[in-house]
Order: sequence, then structure tokens, then C-alpha cells
Amino acid sequence: MEFKATDIAAYLNGEIVGDSNVKVSGISKIEEGEPGTLSFLANPKYESYIYTTRASIVLVNNSFHPRAEIKTTLIKVKDAYQSFASLLDLYVQAKKDSRKGIENPTQIHETAKIGEDVYIGAFTSIGRNATVGNESKIFPQVFLGDNVSVGENCIIYAGVRIYDDCIIGNNCILHSGAVVGSDGFGFAPQEDGTYKKIPQLGNVILEDDVEIGANTAIDCGTFGSTIIRKGAKIDNLVQIAHNCEIGENTVIAGQTGLAGSSKVGKNCRFAGQVGLAGHLTIGNNVQIGAQSGVSKSIKDNEIVLSSPAVNYKDAIKTYTIIRNLPKLREEVIQLQKDVRSLKKADSANSK
Amino acid sequence: MEFKATDIAAYLNGEIVGDSNVKVSGISKIEEGEPGTLSFLANPKYESYIYTTRASIVLVNNSFHPRAEIKTTLIKVKDAYQSFASLLDLYVQAKKDSRKGIENPTQIHETAKIGEDVYIGAFTSIGRNATVGNESKIFPQVFLGDNVSVGENCIIYAGVRIYDDCIIGNNCILHSGAVVGSDGFGFAPQEDGTYKKIPQLGNVILEDDVEIGANTAIDCGTFGSTIIRKGAKIDNLVQIAHNCEIGENTVIAGQTGLAGSSKVGKNCRFAGQVGLAGHLTIGNNVQIGAQSGVSKSIKDNEIVLSSPAVNYKDAIKTYTIIRNLPKLREEVIQLQKDVRSLKKADSANSK
Amino acid sequence: MEFKATDIAAYLNGEIVGDSNVKVSGISKIEEGEPGTLSFLANPKYESYIYTTRASIVLVNNSFHPRAEIKTTLIKVKDAYQSFASLLDLYVQAKKDSRKGIENPTQIHETAKIGEDVYIGAFTSIGRNATVGNESKIFPQVFLGDNVSVGENCIIYAGVRIYDDCIIGNNCILHSGAVVGSDGFGFAPQEDGTYKKIPQLGNVILEDDVEIGANTAIDCGTFGSTIIRKGAKIDNLVQIAHNCEIGENTVIAGQTGLAGSSKVGKNCRFAGQVGLAGHLTIGNNVQIGAQSGVSKSIKDNEIVLSSPAVNYKDAIKTYTIIRNLPKLREEVIQLQKDVRSLKKADSANSK
Repeated sequence: MEFKATDIAAYLNGEIVGDSNVKVSGISKIEEGEPGTLSFLANPKYESYIYTTRASIVLVNNSFHPRAEIKTTLIKVKDAYQSFASLLDLYVQAKKDSRKGIENPTQIHETAKIGEDVYIGAFTSIGRNATVGNESKIFPQVFLGDNVSVGENCIIYAGVRIYDDCIIGNNCILHSGAVVGSDGFGFAPQEDGTYKKIPQLGNVILEDDVEIGANTAIDCGTFGSTIIRKGAKIDNLVQIAHNCEIGENTVIAGQTGLAGSSKVGKNCRFAGQVGLAGHLTIGNNVQIGAQSGVSKSIKDNEIVLSSPAVNYKDAIKTYTIIRNLPKLREEVIQLQKDVRSLKKADSANSK
Repeated sequence: MEFKATDIAAYLNGEIVGDSNVKVSGISKIEEGEPGTLSFLANPKYESYIYTTRASIVLVNNSFHPRAEIKTTLIKVKDAYQSFASLLDLYVQAKKDSRKGIENPTQIHETAKIGEDVYIGAFTSIGRNATVGNESKIFPQVFLGDNVSVGENCIIYAGVRIYDDCIIGNNCILHSGAVVGSDGFGFAPQEDGTYKKIPQLGNVILEDDVEIGANTAIDCGTFGSTIIRKGAKIDNLVQIAHNCEIGENTVIAGQTGLAGSSKVGKNCRFAGQVGLAGHLTIGNNVQIGAQSGVSKSIKDNEIVLSSPAVNYKDAIKTYTIIRNLPKLREEVIQLQKDVRSLKKADSANSK
Repeated sequence: MEFKATDIAAYLNGEIVGDSNVKVSGISKIEEGEPGTLSFLANPKYESYIYTTRASIVLVNNSFHPRAEIKTTLIKVKDAYQSFASLLDLYVQAKKDSRKGIENPTQIHETAKIGEDVYIGAFTSIGRNATVGNESKIFPQVFLGDNVSVGENCIIYAGVRIYDDCIIGNNCILHSGAVVGSDGFGFAPQEDGTYKKIPQLGNVILEDDVEIGANTAIDCGTFGSTIIRKGAKIDNLVQIAHNCEIGENTVIAGQTGLAGSSKVGKNCRFAGQVGLAGHLTIGNNVQIGAQSGVSKSIKDNEIVLSSPAVNYKDAIKTYTIIRNLPKLREEVIQLQKDVRSLKKADSANSK
């Protein structure tokens, strides 16, 4: 989609200063602007960038008066930030996928129930007794097992796999390669050193407004459910083992892994590459720093860091000392020397 | 599947105490029981839960006599644990996927050999000279390259990709998104700073009884094979690089990564997020703690922890000292003060 | 493909010593040689292996004279290493996939432009206005969204997903399960604790000669692009967040993760399981050790290690001290004792 400066100015009721024929097809930050993009200047702190930006069009407030030559085309409006936001909304709306209907070929079991205004892409397989709610979009090459239930207004991107019996709420987004409901990693050690598979009979429940990143894997419960509560957001390549529960509005960044049966509270924030041992209870509003290894339960509102994870203040204090360990080592060596000579002196004195 | 209390009691030759019309469709632990599930009480330690459990039916021993009011329906049997186990077996059997036959459309090369009682799901692609053993189930959207051999009684879930020439033994389970046989990460640095791809000509061999988790990636050998020995179990999102060998009955938890050409012995246990450098030899019965970074070979029966990994006893001792480093720091500062005043005193004494 | 000793000797203009009827179907290192493989001996350091190798044929220099009995078949040539290299080239050429044409069924939008000598596998979906350059191979079950552009001579393996608007250069290789262009992980916290999704409007650009490993995920830019520069090589299960830029010929090993908007220079090498915080600038020729956690920008040519990452020399020094912390602890305790007794003596002396 390309937009001309004159069209944008007309839409925003703005005034063009510069080339009125220039076109843009994207948006950018003023400090990173590329040709062919539109940006905005609202905060005076960023004014310096307007003299160097490569963005083709910049929205500015009517009150803005350049103090140097400007190469980009300006569109002067009443409130540059508001105008940019309204253009952004328009752009998102225009980009929004309005596809509907069922492509060919797909495999949809005769007992499956498909809602209204649904999109189902080619090569998608939908199992026995599965349901897909109204206005949901199932992209190509998706697998929904038997009895899977997908709510309304969901987006399931290409190549997502959802095993039998899993339940997806409304307004959920699952990115490509996400796997929901794979077997928990449970094996009973036998006397001869082999392992016997423990049947994994449970499912996964995603409540409403959950987003799951690309290539993330969420195992089913051994019995019962692995549960991702309403509004939780899970990034790419995350591992969530059997029978975990992730609380409402908790956010988990990329490559974090949770071992089995851990329960995470509401409104937590996990940074990337965190590891959580099994059978822990993490409170509400807990924050966990990147690469932390959590081996104990954590109370509400705690902020932890490091592996093994401790309170972040202690972690930072310890890091500082660790960085200075070579100095500490030298101080101890110096003390040893001092004490040796003191001893010698002392023994001389006491003679 | 729903089961009525009367049917269960009849099957187990048990006696109902309570509502004989109640139905269950799943199983639960007594301490987590949900309505609609069946649980059991065998260990007297758990007796307290029977007075509060929300499970609809609980199997108990004939010898059990409640000491308070019980809301759930009881079924009294000779041995509650054995009865639960036999119900579980029945349930697993009933849930067991009995699907057979080849769905439509699939792409199966005319030279491929498909065994008896095999299931092949829609949108699956099977290459030239590939073979699928008897009673194996290949779910929809699977890719088996040329010359791939899948043994008997395997389950290959939706969206697994197996590159050319790889060999899968009998009774293997591969979960969705697993990739077997992708190119090893080998590039020869050139004088101009670019890299030239080193051809990856080998394959991957999975022996019998191997299970591979969701979205795990196992690269082929550069020459020769990457080998996963009989009975090894690999969790989700694990990376196994070219020419590694994983020993019999070794268990590797989620998000662990092995660099190229490392050889792991039998009956090892790796926790989650472990990293193993390349060209190492790990003995038999080795245990590696979560998030450990292993940069040296490890002898039989060792237990290691930390990054870089050391013997777990040393690691725990070191962790304790690290946690107390701020105290150690203060002790050194105190010693410095003491030594300073001793010196001063000493110099006064010696005058 | 099987080759007989006589054919190989004829091709290389070499002389057979031993069984001229033996056949090989693969290649091996002399120290790991398996029956049915061909190996070579060039470096005298490896001579001892020739007396024990199980390889069926070994290429040796004309100048080689065995000092003990040899069971394998030898082919004597002028330069064993060169001969092996030329056989390897022949083998790679023979194995090279020459498939062309469009299989059935596929879903290719009528507006998509497909170049010459292209291969498109079954169950692949190619969107509106997408383009595939000459001689590229798109394996089965691939998803190319709307406006996706794939250059010439690319290999896109089974099950790769590329979201709308992403651009793939020439000579790129993408392995199975790779996801390119999934949404950046951006959510605006609301006053009630919920998160509002920030529209992810950008794309991903892979320049020429880029290789992306199995199950790696690369998010699109929030605005603008996530960019992987020419010749960069990314291993399996790597996470690259929105708006990152990876410089030319930079190599990133498995399970490494980059948070949003970080910029990595040219010719860097990241080992496995590295974590990089967001909004960092990493210079050229930077090397980062395995499992490092990088929270600060890094200058050109630095080598860093550890979490948090520091210069590798400092990291190694610190590791050594950490390993010896129990000893340091004891030294401090000894010092405390010594100082106590010195104080006592001092106080006695001063009386």
C-alpha cells in the first residue's frame, strides 16, 4: 500500500511543506527513518532528528518552525502525535486480514463444528468433534486434533499443532510452529535401566486473550490440565511442561522453560532464557531476570535474578563482589603477608 | 467417554457408598480432585483429603472407615490402588488410537514401502524408497524424505520432518515439530570473511524405543551418523548437533543443547537447559544439573552442576560461599582494619 | 549409491592393493571408519589408524609403505588428500537434488510469480503477490505469506513458514520448522493489569547467502525490518526478536536468543545458548562464549564470556578464583584466628 503526501494531508486536514508528490508505504521512528516511510515529531527532544531523518514525510505540529534546512516533506497538523496514531489505526485496519471461507483442499471431520465468518486455510486438518468459533482464522497447514475447541476471533497461524482434547479460548493468537498438548515428559525407571512411558492423559487449556509465540511447546497434563490463564502472553521457543499453570496477565519471554507442575501467579514478568524447576509456586507480580535459574518457590512481588535465583538486590551486590574477586584475592594475600610479618615481629617482641 | 459409578463398581466388583448415578470422565489425584473425575485413596497419609476432595468418585479399600462426613461417592474394593491401576489401563486402552488406513490427499512416492495396519494422515509426504513399518501411525502433515526408514509400531505426530536417509527404529515416538536430519552447522571460514558451506552428507539414526519431544532438532552427521541409542528419551526444544551419540536409556530434559560430535553414555540424566560443548565424552550414569554448562568430558557416575560444570558437592559448597560473599568481603575489611591497628601497635611496641 | 574399488581406482588413476571387488557407499574418517565406507590417509600422524580401521577402502599416497599387516583395501594415488576431495565433490554433485517442477496439490495464488527451473513440493501454500526466484527449491508443506519474495537458488525445506511481506535474498537455505516474520513480542501494559497488543507492522529481510537452522524463530520488526545481513549463518532453535540486525558473515550457534532492537556487527561469532538483552550494539568481530548473558553493548574485536558477560580473560580469572573460593574462605578463617591471637599477644605485650 502506497500513500501520497497530498492524500495524507487531505485526510488529516494538514498543510504540506515540501514535495507534495512523495509517496510512503510504511512508518518509522524519526531517528531511524528510511526513504518511503512516514514519521512524526511531537516531543521537542527529538527535534534534532528532523534535520537529518531519511523519512520521506514527517508529521509536525502547526507550532513547529524549523531552525535549519529540512529535506523531508512536512505535513503540519494540529497534534502530530494524535494524527500519527490515527494514521496508524487506519493502516492496521487496512492491513487487517479480512479473509474468510474454507480453502481447498482441507480435511475437516464431518463431526467438526465450524462457526460463522471463519477462515480455514488449505492443507489444514481438523479432527473429530473439534469446534472452531465464529470469526476465527485458521491458516494453512494447521492440525487440530480430535475434540479440540478453538474459541471466537482467534488467529492460528500456519503450521500450529494442537493435540486432541485441548481447549483454546476466545481472542487467542498462536504463532507458527507452536505445539499445544504434546505428551508430558514422564517415564517410570525400570529395574533394568529402561524407562516405561507414563500415559499422558490430560490436555492444555488456554483461556481468553492468550498469545503463544512461534515454535513454543506446551505439554498436556499427565492427568488434568496444563493451564494458561486469561491474558497471559508467551513468547517464542518457550517450554511449558505438563500440569503447569500460568496466571492471568503473566508475560514470559523467549526461550524460558518451566519444568512440570509449577504454578505461576498473576501479572508476573519472566525475562528470556529463565529456567524454573518443577513443583514450584511463584506468587503474583513476581519478576524474574534473564537467564535466572529458579529452584525454590517465590513470594508475591519479589524480584529475583541469577542462577540459582535470589533477590535481585542481593544478586547485584554479589555480582559486584564477584567482579572484584581478583582484588579480594590479592587483599587476602596481602593480609597473609602482613600477618606473617606481624607474627614474626610478635615472636621477636615476646622473646 | 463417561462412566457411571454403577458400571465402575460392577467392573471392579466393588460396593458403592453414596450416589450411584454419578458419572466421571477423567481421573485425578485425590488432593486435586475436580468434579467429574475419579480418584483413589490407598496411602493412609492422604486420608484427610477424602473429606474435602471434589472428585466425584473415590476408590477406597474395604478396610477404610471414614472418621467424618464424606460428600464424594465411594467405591469400596479389595485393593484401591490395584483397582485404580486396572481402570487406568482400561482407560488408556480405550483412548488408544486405533486409526488405520491412508487418508486423502497424501503424497506417497510409488517406490515407498508401506507396511500393514499403518495409518498415514492427510497432507503427509513420503519420499522415494522410504519405508514405514507395520502398525506405525504417521499423522497429518508429516514429511519423510527419500530413503527414510520408519520401523514398526511408531507414532509420528503431525508436522514432524525427517530429512533424506534417516533411520527410525521400532516403537519410536516423535512429537509435533520435531526435525530429524537437518544440516549440521558446519562452515569453512574463507579469507575474505565469508563462510563456505561444508556439505552435510550423513544421517540420523534413532534406535528402538526412542522418544523425541516437540520442536526438538537433531542434525545429521557431517559424514556418518548422529545416533540416538535404544531407549533414550529426549524432551522438547532440545538441540542435538551433528555426529553426537546419545547412549541407551539416557534422558535429556527440555531446551538442552549439545554441540557437535559429543558422545554421551548410557543411563545418563540431563536436566533442562544444559549446554554441552563439542567433542566431549560423557560416561555412563552421569547426571547433569539444570542450566549447567559442560566444557570438559565427564567420567562414569559423576554428578555435575553449574556453569562451568563441576562436581555437584563442590558446586553446592561454592554456591553457599557465593551467597555469603558480602559477609566474606566484610570480614576481609575487618581484618584489614585489625591488621592496620596491629601494625600500628607493633610499630609502637618496637620503638 | 555404491562404488566398486576398481571403478574408484580407474577414476583416480590409482593402484589397488587388496580386494578389488569391495564396494563402498559412504565416506568416513580413518579413525572412525565403518565397513562400506571409503577413507584416506594423508597426515602421517594418523598412520596408526590404517592398521585397525574398519573402512573398506583407504586412499593412500604412492609413497606410503605399510609397516604392519593391513586388512582394508588400499588405493594408492599421487595425493591422497586431493583425490579424496575430488571424490567428495563428485559425491556431493551426485547427491545434489535436481528436482524441478510443481507437485500436486499445491496452493499458489494466481498473482504469485514463479521463476524458471523451480521446485515446489506438495501441500505448499504461496500467497498473493509472492515471488519465487529461478532455480529455488521449495519443499513440501512450506507456507509463504502474501508479498513474500524468495530470491534465486534458495532451498526452503519442508515446513518452513514465512509471514507476509518478508524478503529472502538469493542462495539462502532455510531448514525445517524455521519461522520468519512472526509477531514481535510487544504489549502495552494497561492500568487494569492486562496487556494490549502493539501491532507488529514490519517484516524480516534476509540478504543473500543466509542460512537459518531448524525451528529457529525470527520476529518481524514492529515498524521497519528485522534484518539478517549477507552471509550470516544462524543455527537451530535461535530466537531473534523484532527489529534486530545481524551483520554480514556473523555466525550464531544453537539456542541463542536476542531480545528486541539489538544490532550485531559483521564477522561476529556467538556460541550456543547466549542471551543478548535488547537495544544493544555489538561491534564487528566480537566473539561471545557459550551461555553468556550480554547486558551491555560490546566494542569491536572484544571476546566476552560469562553471565553477565565480561572480557574473557577476566571471566577466566574470576572462574579460577570462584573454583578456589572454599580455599579462600578457609584462608580468611585462618587469618581471623591469627589476628585474634596476635591481638591477644599484642594486648599482653602492651600491658
